Parts: sequence; C-alpha cells; structure tokens
Amino acid sequence: MGQTITEKIFSEHVGREVKAGEIVRCNIDMVIGNDITTPISIRAFEESGATKLANPDGFSIVMDHFIPAKDIASANQAKISREFAYKHNLKHFFDEKDMGIEHALLPEKGLVVPGDVIIGADSHTCTHGALGAFSTGMGSTDLAFAMITGGNWFKVPETIKVVFTGKPGEHIYGKDLILELIRMIGVDGALYKALEFTGDTIEYLSMDDRFSLCNMAIEAGAKSGIIACDDITKEFLADKPLAREPKFHYSDEDANYCQVIEIDVSKLEPVIAYPHLPSNGKPISQAVADDLRIDQVFIGSCTNGRLSDIKIAAEIVKGKKVARHTRMIVTPATQKILKAAEKAGYIDALIDAGAVVSNPTCGACLGGYMGILGDNERCISTTNRNFVGRMGARSSEIYLANSAVAAASAIAGKIVDPRDI
Amino acid sequence: MGQTITEKIFSEHVGREVKAGEIVRCNIDMVIGNDITTPISIRAFEESGATKLANPDGFSIVMDHFIPAKDIASANQAKISREFAYKHNLKHFFDEKDMGIEHALLPEKGLVVPGDVIIGADSHTCTHGALGAFSTGMGSTDLAFAMITGGNWFKVPETIKVVFTGKPGEHIYGKDLILELIRMIGVDGALYKALEFTGDTIEYLSMDDRFSLCNMAIEAGAKSGIIACDDITKEFLADKPLAREPKFHYSDEDANYCQVIEIDVSKLEPVIAYPHLPSNGKPISQAVADDLRIDQVFIGSCTNGRLSDIKIAAEIVKGKKVARHTRMIVTPATQKILKAAEKAGYIDALIDAGAVVSNPTCGACLGGYMGILGDNERCISTTNRNFVGRMGARSSEIYLANSAVAAASAIAGKIVDPRDI
Repeated sequence: MGQTITEKIFSEHVGREVKAGEIVRCNIDMVIGNDITTPISIRAFEESGATKLANPDGFSIVMDHFIPAKDIASANQAKISREFAYKHNLKHFFDEKDMGIEHALLPEKGLVVPGDVIIGADSHTCTHGALGAFSTGMGSTDLAFAMITGGNWFKVPETIKVVFTGKPGEHIYGKDLILELIRMIGVDGALYKALEFTGDTIEYLSMDDRFSLCNMAIEAGAKSGIIACDDITKEFLADKPLAREPKFHYSDEDANYCQVIEIDVSKLEPVIAYPHLPSNGKPISQAVADDLRIDQVFIGSCTNGRLSDIKIAAEIVKGKKVARHTRMIVTPATQKILKAAEKAGYIDALIDAGAVVSNPTCGACLGGYMGILGDNERCISTTNRNFVGRMGARSSEIYLANSAVAAASAIAGKIVDPRDI
Repeated sequence: MGQTITEKIFSEHVGREVKAGEIVRCNIDMVIGNDITTPISIRAFEESGATKLANPDGFSIVMDHFIPAKDIASANQAKISREFAYKHNLKHFFDEKDMGIEHALLPEKGLVVPGDVIIGADSHTCTHGALGAFSTGMGSTDLAFAMITGGNWFKVPETIKVVFTGKPGEHIYGKDLILELIRMIGVDGALYKALEFTGDTIEYLSMDDRFSLCNMAIEAGAKSGIIACDDITKEFLADKPLAREPKFHYSDEDANYCQVIEIDVSKLEPVIAYPHLPSNGKPISQAVADDLRIDQVFIGSCTNGRLSDIKIAAEIVKGKKVARHTRMIVTPATQKILKAAEKAGYIDALIDAGAVVSNPTCGACLGGYMGILGDNERCISTTNRNFVGRMGARSSEIYLANSAVAAASAIAGKIVDPRDI
C-alpha cells in the first residue's frame, strides 16, 4: 500500500518509511513563535539550562498579536521576546520593523518551504500546509523542546481526503470551501487527522485561496491541512528566496485514507458561519432572508487578510459608501500586502468608501485590539473563529464569511450576497 | 487703548467692545467632542431634558482616542456617541469612516474658521488658534451647556505677546519654538492667558508649524494660543469648503498685553523636553552628549502628525534602517494626510526603513494603544506631554522633540541631532 503526502514528509524526515499512527521523533524545519506564546517558550528554554538554539535559522518570532503594544502588559510581554531575539542575534525576528501576521509573513519570506515539517505555537500554523508542507500548532513548551533540541515527537496523523470537484462560481473562494467542509463534518470532524485537499477544483484556487483553506483545518479539529504542490504553488515560490530546497511529495494513488469526503463546488453558494461556531454554516441566501443588520465589518487575519482579499473588497466598495451605521475595518496581513494594495489603489478606494485601513496585525480577529466589539454588536468577519466573545463582548455576534460578502455587506449595512450587487 | 485679536474676536461675538478680564456670554461657532469626552456631555445633555442641539452644524464629534475599539470598554463607550450621532442625524460625526485626530481633521474640513470662538472637550483644542480663532479646551459638562444653549460663559483672557524674531535654522520647527517658550516660562507660565504668537519669524512658519506651535499653548497653562492670519493662512483656507465666512482680526498696535516675551529664533537649536515635564527643555547638543539610547520613536499626534512631519521623517529615514533595538511608529493624523503621504512615497520609505505606519488615531500619545511603553523603556516622541506614565509604564521615559530629531534618532537608536547626519 502506498503513502499519503503527510506520511511521505515524515518518512523523508525520519529516514525510513513511516505510517500513520506511528510515533516518531524528527527534526523540524521551522519553529514559529509569536508575541503571546513565545515568552512561555523562552522561560521553559531558559529553565532547561539551554543557552543556544539548536537551529537558530529554523526559529522565527513574529510579533503580530498585540504589537505595537496595546497596553503596558503587552509592552512588557513583548520585551521578553525582543530581548531574547537580540541576545541570540535571531535572524528571523519580526516586530514593528517588518510587521505581518506570521502565517502570511513566513510564506512571503520563503521561510516555509514545500516538504517541510513546521510547528508553531499558534493554532493556525496549519496554514502553511498550502505549500505542501506538514505544519501544525503546538503548545509553548513543545516549542521550547524544539528550540532546545531542533526536533520533536509526532504521531503521524491519519488522513482524510477531501475531494473538491467542479469550478467555483462567482464569489466562491477557499473560505467557502472550508466553511462548507466544517459545516458537514463539525468542529471535531477531523480530530488529529490531516485534511488533504484534492480534486479538480484545486487548480482554480489561487495560493491565497489555498492558504485560506488550509488555515481553517484546525477549525475542524484537524492536526494539519495540506495541498500537494502544482504549477500555482511553484509560481508562488519562484520569486521567493527559499530557506531550503523544496521537496515535492504527492500521495500515492493507493494511499490509505481513513475517510474520503466529496464536495461538489460548482453549486456552492457563499457560506456564512453563524454564531457561535465555525460549523454553523448557512448559504448566503438564508443570511439574506434573515435580514441581518451589522455594526462592523472586519476584513483581515491569517485567514483572509491577503492581497486578493483587499482587492476583492476594494473593487466592491470602490465609488460607494459604507452604510451610516456600519464601520469597516481592513487589516492587511503584511507590509508587503499593504504596499502592493496601496500601489494598486485599493487602499485609497477603501478609505474613500469609509473604511479604516490599519497596519498589519492579528488585531480584531482574536479580540486583541483594532476593532473590538461592544455589547450586542454584530460583526461580519473574514476571520476564522466566531466563538462567544472571540472579538469582544460576550453578547456580540460574529458571522464568518469571505471577503466579497463582507465588503458588500459593509455597503448595505446588512449581510447581502455580493452576486446581487 | 486698542484691543488684542482675542478681545476683538469676543467683541465681535458679544456685539460690543469687551476687554480682557470681563466675563461674557457668547455664541460658539464650533463645539468639539471626542470618543472619551462626549459620552459625559451626552449624559449631561440628556439629563437636562434637552432634546435638540441648539446648533447641530456647530457640533462635531471626532472619534479619535480609542477607535477602532481597543477593548470592550472603549467599544461600549463609542456606542454612546454613535447612537447620539445617528439619533440627531449629526452632520459632523467622524468615526472609522473618516478617521482623524480632531485638531488636524477639523481644519482640513473647513469646520474651524478665522474669527471663530471654538470650544472642545479636549485640552489641545487650543490648536485651532493657528487659524486666527479663539479656541480653548473645556470640560464635558461645559460642552453639554454649549450643546444645549449654543453658547457659554468666558472670562476674556489677558494676552501674553510672544515675539519670535529671526529665521529658523535647519530642522527648527514650530515644535522647537513652543518647547523653548515653555522652557522659559514653565508649565504654569501662562495660566488663563492667551498666548499671541507674533514677530517676523511667523512668516517662515508653515500652517503645520503654526498648528504645532498653538497646540502646546496649553502646556504653558494658557487658555489659548493664537496667530493672526496672513497669506499663508489664506492659502491654507483657499481650497477648503469653509463652514462660515472667515473674519480676520488683528491686534491693534496699542493693544494691552500683560507681558511681552521676545525669543531670537535664529540661534535656536532643536529643543528636547526631558522627562517628565514639557518645560524640561534642553538643546539637542546636551541630549547628544547624554547619549540617550531609545527603545521607541513615535511620530504622530495633534502636535506633529501632519503631512510635513511625515515628509520630514520619510526623507530622513529613506534608504536607511531603523536601529535593531529601536522601533519606530508613525501615525498620520488624518486619512487625507495618510493618502497624500502614500502618494508622495513617504509611507513606502518609512515602511522600507522599518517603521510601522498606523491608521490615524491619537493612539500612543495618551497611552491609548498603538505603541504603549513597557517598564523602563525610553521613547522619543513628537507629542505634547511627557508626564510620568503618559505613554505607558510609570518607569518609562518620554523625550519630546520635533519630527526630524525623532526620525534621525530612530536610525541611530539614540537621540541624535538631525543636522549631523
């Protein structure tokens, strides 16, 4: 019997053929921390007596959650990572100097590479699977173990094969595909499994869509999401200074999958995840019928803060005005995205329509800052989680959607179908 | 005996000749609230039984301190102003839709006009005096009284005449002139006085410099700062849709001043106000000798977040890199400034040097968000106050300076003289 792409990545790292279910120790190509998780890792690192990182160039700290500091506590927390980075002369330290959300920034920098094993002390580390890598979130002390030893222990996950078929219709994006999958299997539908996204639909998905798709694998409880590389991946990689030689793995035809799920994309409507779970997906037609007035629109995050999201939003709002009672906040995921969006005129179009465009940050997504919700406020958001209180007050409501739905809804002041405007 | 410009403005509003020291009731042309002061005004307004604003088009709410909401408390606070604005169909309500710091935004919009009497529930309302208006900060309940009645009571202030002479040297700005004055007279040197800025230096000062100069009148305890209109003022006004007909007043030659202060600007060095008072001014040469390593540079605020500040900073950092241990935060004061800075390439130059550029907000200046200082951190800031804990931790230190000093210091990682680089 053949191997899945995930089994092949681990086999290559371990130096022998491994199968799902095996517990293995292997080296890690990139270890990722951020401003809220790394201080705990640093404490564990220092308490261990370690003085040197096992693989300094395979460790990144990205200060993206509460930076520039929102308060004294976050300023003091940031100091821990800053001082560690200076002391260890860390090459891959990103703070105010080259701001970006880790899961958008590292692919941009060529720091995550096809065939890699990647861990990050952030649940959405699964995003990088879009580059044909195994990438998963771990805890801060797991991170410390990797900082000290250069590797970690993994149970090689079983794989659920998701087969997307058909060409996506207008305003159907990676976000809709993953929301539809989570609607079908639930937030625990893929516990400790790898979600391998396949099917003829994949060729219609840009890298931005693929990152968005893999990003929310964790919202189905998956260990990782992964998409095998193709020409679109290779084109994305072509202008990046890759940190390592990419290794392209592909699942064998006779690979062992624990489940196969088929989704016909051609008839899919934009999907809206109602409060308070990403699995509460409804077709946009139902949301329109429900006449959902909104206080805030948020476009950003590691899920949907990329250039195509800004472009989609700008094109929809250009020449129009955000509804009187609605505010629109757009947070590009990296400085590179922000600069490209400026150059293309997207930022001006957004500002002229009445949006505020912030610096790159995780910001509002996690209820950090830059758009927190007050009591009973309703937000449509391109982010990944609509849990109770995720973006602010416990009585607030979050509807998850793609960037086109979010932008069109900003103009209407309620949730609308972007295909109708 | 003749009248000062301030006496003339009040005389015109009261309808008879008034003198300093008189207590008068007069109409107010523009009443300004922000997201933190207006909710208190609204409560007082509603408790009074009032249902209508006396002069709706003479009332502005500018949401600039904690918007987009930094936390649940600020989100809920913002709702009070939002709901009032919607209920009263307020024409001049600025939130995420047209963000800007009130004292930069209102002049841009033509909402403050020469000859006006202006009050705002923000101490830096004195900024608007740069347009030849009487403009002063008041409390939130004073604001409510004006919302209800359209006017308020004033004691017409005595005037201190400040005569600036000589041409400012390289990298000497309005900021240095006001820091030098406050150094000379102290933070209570002008209590309840109008500071009238005159002298041949004024013709060398751009409107941005004049706003910066008047902005810090309050830091000497003054009731207001004022500069008579000239061709530079009129050029500034020319492309603005002015809310009222401007009235140009000029002090009579035999006007009565309670004090005259002369300052020779031609030999002035850039001035740095050391912690913890704006009056602790030192020449840049002393700061250089003191070898002051800095953690953060902040360029922004109603004092120095205007286009010329962004330009000065961008030109200094262009092609260079912010020092490893230093972070640089730039906050344009309005969307118009941000867009103009983008177009001119300043934003890209700043980002490429390693700065983060935020959306318009008061942000870090008042310790709000977007660059709060941690324990023992040192910041050079273009803002107006360096009180203990103003921008964060009580043990942090703020050095006030002009934008050129701040930008040059970002590159050096310590306070340096921009004329030396």
